[in-house]
Amino acid sequence: MVKANSVALCLAASLSAASAQTFQRLGTCPDLGCVLPPDQQDFLPGQEFDIRFEIHAPKNGSEAFNNGVPDEKFTATIAKDGQKPKSIAEFFKHSEPALEKWTFSWFEDLFAEDANKPSVVNVASKAFRRVALYEPGEYTVTLKYYDGQTTKAHWTVRPLATKKKAKNVVFFIGDGMTTNMITAARLLGHKTVNGRYQSLLALDEFPVLGHQMSHSIDTFITDSANSASALYSGHKSSVNAMGVYVDSSPDTHDDPKVETIVELLYRVWGSAWGAVSTAFIADATPIALTGHTRRRSEYGVLIDQALHGVSNYSWTRTAGPDAYFGGGAEQFIPGSGSYQGKDYYAEFANEGYSVSWNKTALLAAPNDQKALGIFCRSNLPVWLDRNIYTDNLATLENNPSGAKGPATDLPGQKDMTLKAIEILNKRGGDKGFFLMSEAASIDKQMHTLDYERALGDLLELDDTVRATIKKLEDLGILEETLIVVTADHGHGFDVFGSADTKYLRAQEDDRSKRSAVGVYERSGLSQYTQPKEGVQYGTGANFPLNWDPRYAIAAGLGANPDHREDYGLGHKPRVPAAVGANGEVYVENTDRPGGFVVNGTLPTDEAQGVHSLTDVPIFARGPCQETFGGTYSNIDVFYKIASCLGLGHPHNKTVEHPGHPGDGHARYSYLPT
Amino acid sequence: MVKANSVALCLAASLSAASAQTFQRLGTCPDLGCVLPPDQQDFLPGQEFDIRFEIHAPKNGSEAFNNGVPDEKFTATIAKDGQKPKSIAEFFKHSEPALEKWTFSWFEDLFAEDANKPSVVNVASKAFRRVALYEPGEYTVTLKYYDGQTTKAHWTVRPLATKKKAKNVVFFIGDGMTTNMITAARLLGHKTVNGRYQSLLALDEFPVLGHQMSHSIDTFITDSANSASALYSGHKSSVNAMGVYVDSSPDTHDDPKVETIVELLYRVWGSAWGAVSTAFIADATPIALTGHTRRRSEYGVLIDQALHGVSNYSWTRTAGPDAYFGGGAEQFIPGSGSYQGKDYYAEFANEGYSVSWNKTALLAAPNDQKALGIFCRSNLPVWLDRNIYTDNLATLENNPSGAKGPATDLPGQKDMTLKAIEILNKRGGDKGFFLMSEAASIDKQMHTLDYERALGDLLELDDTVRATIKKLEDLGILEETLIVVTADHGHGFDVFGSADTKYLRAQEDDRSKRSAVGVYERSGLSQYTQPKEGVQYGTGANFPLNWDPRYAIAAGLGANPDHREDYGLGHKPRVPAAVGANGEVYVENTDRPGGFVVNGTLPTDEAQGVHSLTDVPIFARGPCQETFGGTYSNIDVFYKIASCLGLGHPHNKTVEHPGHPGDGHARYSYLPT
Repeated sequence: MVKANSVALCLAASLSAASAQTFQRLGTCPDLGCVLPPDQQDFLPGQEFDIRFEIHAPKNGSEAFNNGVPDEKFTATIAKDGQKPKSIAEFFKHSEPALEKWTFSWFEDLFAEDANKPSVVNVASKAFRRVALYEPGEYTVTLKYYDGQTTKAHWTVRPLATKKKAKNVVFFIGDGMTTNMITAARLLGHKTVNGRYQSLLALDEFPVLGHQMSHSIDTFITDSANSASALYSGHKSSVNAMGVYVDSSPDTHDDPKVETIVELLYRVWGSAWGAVSTAFIADATPIALTGHTRRRSEYGVLIDQALHGVSNYSWTRTAGPDAYFGGGAEQFIPGSGSYQGKDYYAEFANEGYSVSWNKTALLAAPNDQKALGIFCRSNLPVWLDRNIYTDNLATLENNPSGAKGPATDLPGQKDMTLKAIEILNKRGGDKGFFLMSEAASIDKQMHTLDYERALGDLLELDDTVRATIKKLEDLGILEETLIVVTADHGHGFDVFGSADTKYLRAQEDDRSKRSAVGVYERSGLSQYTQPKEGVQYGTGANFPLNWDPRYAIAAGLGANPDHREDYGLGHKPRVPAAVGANGEVYVENTDRPGGFVVNGTLPTDEAQGVHSLTDVPIFARGPCQETFGGTYSNIDVFYKIASCLGLGHPHNKTVEHPGHPGDGHARYSYLPT
Repeated sequence: MVKANSVALCLAASLSAASAQTFQRLGTCPDLGCVLPPDQQDFLPGQEFDIRFEIHAPKNGSEAFNNGVPDEKFTATIAKDGQKPKSIAEFFKHSEPALEKWTFSWFEDLFAEDANKPSVVNVASKAFRRVALYEPGEYTVTLKYYDGQTTKAHWTVRPLATKKKAKNVVFFIGDGMTTNMITAARLLGHKTVNGRYQSLLALDEFPVLGHQMSHSIDTFITDSANSASALYSGHKSSVNAMGVYVDSSPDTHDDPKVETIVELLYRVWGSAWGAVSTAFIADATPIALTGHTRRRSEYGVLIDQALHGVSNYSWTRTAGPDAYFGGGAEQFIPGSGSYQGKDYYAEFANEGYSVSWNKTALLAAPNDQKALGIFCRSNLPVWLDRNIYTDNLATLENNPSGAKGPATDLPGQKDMTLKAIEILNKRGGDKGFFLMSEAASIDKQMHTLDYERALGDLLELDDTVRATIKKLEDLGILEETLIVVTADHGHGFDVFGSADTKYLRAQEDDRSKRSAVGVYERSGLSQYTQPKEGVQYGTGANFPLNWDPRYAIAAGLGANPDHREDYGLGHKPRVPAAVGANGEVYVENTDRPGGFVVNGTLPTDEAQGVHSLTDVPIFARGPCQETFGGTYSNIDVFYKIASCLGLGHPHNKTVEHPGHPGDGHARYSYLPT
């Protein structure tokens, strides 16, 4: 925010230490007047969004002001550079919204939290719904309040992009995937001779490489909700939020929204779209394509939004995904996990979807019909359990129908992605398609320090990318399809040597066990690419020949819970730390019993590893690939894709969608005259 | 190696488990017959190299063979694809070398080492010195031994590159620098507003980004010697080696050599060259430009090689660097650290060098004269101590003259690099120049878990890159200069949150202290970019405004010695672990006394962190920049630069260098007829 007078300046200076770190009053609002979207946000021309203004009056704490009475007579204007400011209502031809009021509280630091001394803030607010800016250029929003205080927000509308350069986009997300993990996966799946790889990852053969910065709008470490949202909408948000800027109101569904790539694509071109994930399908990365909430854990309503759109406000509809494959039956089986207890298999079927509960049904589903495939409860079992330790599958209670017993006949990311492409190509026709395909358990298994399972799913992603290129070629659409592979954030994982697991197990004390680690000249060569005597996995090229060699990779994260380490592969998915009765986390004694104890670096209520700061890689091939080189923000990924798809128009462009009344609702936009 | 008969095949299968991991008989030689350079090596046309053959006869252990008697009657041939094999001597017009014999021993695994049961190997060998291949294409070397066993090595000579596309190359190496560290350095030195950086790193603005794989020829974790050597020569080697393939002989200076970029550049074009490092100048990264040894710790002789070239064999000379700036006075002050106890300041002066011991002298050195600048003993103090905690400097005994007391008036990487460019531009003239400039202490400070000091030196590197672009522009040579910035390997560092250092210090037990770490929504914003009350460092833009904010980055490595962590900045350079009398490493109690103990993941004789696996980034701008996108091996960096410099010729191209008799020595080459 640009501060326009000295009162605001002093205030901001005194606040910055308290409000910008660890705990925040409202991350995007260091002043007492808040503009959402805040300062320095970008927009695609014609991208629809909501605006909210908030005036904060802290009742107590370091920021106490005006006896806790917020200014209800605040005013706001907007001006394009070089033009005269107009009131928001006049500019967007929007009626003046009703005043809203609420109270929230927060802790200023850990000492305040320990003492349970919250700071209480009273708020006055107005929201302008569903507006858009069509003219590229710079805009300034000015909020005036408290008789002379000012908060300004500078907004940039990016250049027009009216021409489609790619007919289709396949957008792969390796959740939590870093360059470090890609290097490690290559080491496991591909053999070297005298320092030369005999085969490479599909990713290694992409012509263009970039780095994108994953941080949130108000924190330097992101979660998967708001990073996905940045990739899909061009707007960064806060942890746990998607498709909205986070406001301070109690309602988690009234936060100011932004239009996403699939909403835009369906509105502007009427294209087909789909999502594939190895997570539960209501998980942040797939659901952020259509979700608008600041609380990602509201899974049921988010599935309803994917099918029916936002219900509490007029908003862009997508008519639902054309292909929607993953886990997460909890939100479909009628009951406590589904929205309003309804049967979402039936809800989707009523909208014309085929419904598949296993791989056989998936492969047999008609390509000209919308398709839902939910293959288990919770996340899909990982590649390693589906292909190597298959006996783990039978122990699960994850049947997608809701019946007792395990899910069987499970598809993997490759099966789901290739089928989705067939359907989307058929249904998109001349209008093309957008598919997001997520390798979710790279992240999930890094959280539990289960490195081999994470890398197995990374190799599955790479195998899927390879198969996708071939499928697009077979369909004759490779050259008109942009393929982008990236991640949403990192984990601080790296490999630092090898470990002689036989020697480690033979040592009796923790310090001696650590002698099993070989670094530098003792790291040796990957033994994962050496055939395992008497064993053939049948998993084909590009996967390890031995998943549990005597000499395993020695790897770790900087961010750990207490855990025991043996650097080997656990037969069962890993649970590194146990949560005690009081929420305190300790070493899980059944995990890696022959290993040595490593105490954690995280708070003792964190049972898993956490995300990290690092820029993540982005690989591109196809139309517009040349725009993906170099280093940039995650929001730029949206603008690059949206430009390539021709989604930035100088006027409201909404194709006719018979039977989707949502698109006829009121829309308030600034149309250049 | 390709095995040509069943005996070799069986042998190899039985050996692979023992010889490929942790301990190795000879990493590039799984068979008993060894060809060096081994299978699947690449060469620049005309690049000079040595060949060695070894026949191994293990006396005992799992590979015992032929009663420990090596075959002395081995034969070797070479054939270009589609041509008839010729003996090595005939092909290269080389005299038949004398037979050499020696014995070495190794341990097959940690159990054997614990029991002190070495495996002993007798060896017969021949070496062919200073040959070259001029015709691009595929070659096969066949070694026959033990009456029917065969080892083949396939070699590739890369395409000709006779035309200079860049006049100059400035090659920056951030030692140990990863994408994760670049992201962290950006967070410390550059401010965000609502998720948008207000300024960026110089690296962020490079147009082309690639990833290079850093592994050694025989291990997946590299050190800085052989990774530098790969970048400079296009040949991977083994840990601790540079400019050679490692053989098994006792002499560390008879290993088969390969010609480096500066040897080639001086021989082919007579260009100027220089090296700048913040390490001691005999350290691996700078010295590998001219060093040929398998033992990087032979510092004295390596300095002599930099000035006088290899003395025990006929080999390419460079006439010494034109600019040579760094630390490491130990190898120049006459005494135990210098080669043959000689005064290397005098040796350099005798060859016409100006000699500088401080920044003032450096800046005043004439640009038309060769220049040596050695500014301290050991490594240069890091940027943070030179600019923030300057009182640390006075406590050092590092005067470069050999006198007692500290070095004063120290230059940084930027001063040294800009001066080197002035000298090289003057001295190179029309012939151009090559400069390597290393930010060495990114690596050195990561080894000691001193993250802020490492990131300070990364920001100094970035500042140097920015200043270099400007200097080249001022000199009118920016457009004819290729700038490449990369690393030689990684460390498994990442940031995973923020830590409230005030809260951490106030807690009394280890587990409570960990509650000071804020992850995700509690990570907050960088406080390094907020002004520190009452303090101005005067370090200019692109550096932190506060180096020790209350909310510090919470960061770590996966590979740690035992240490204590408080996530804050230590006033003194960090020593995380103490080495006990028996070589056992424990927590250093004077380090971070208010922190909590983290036990290590490394062997208990490792007092520091170690290198990691990750691919490292490479940034390029200038002529040939388009060749640096995507993912490739570190050796490809050499071929890209060498091709851009026009160093691949179809015949022996050696410019006349009066007064450098080394260039007139015998050279055995295969010249196409």
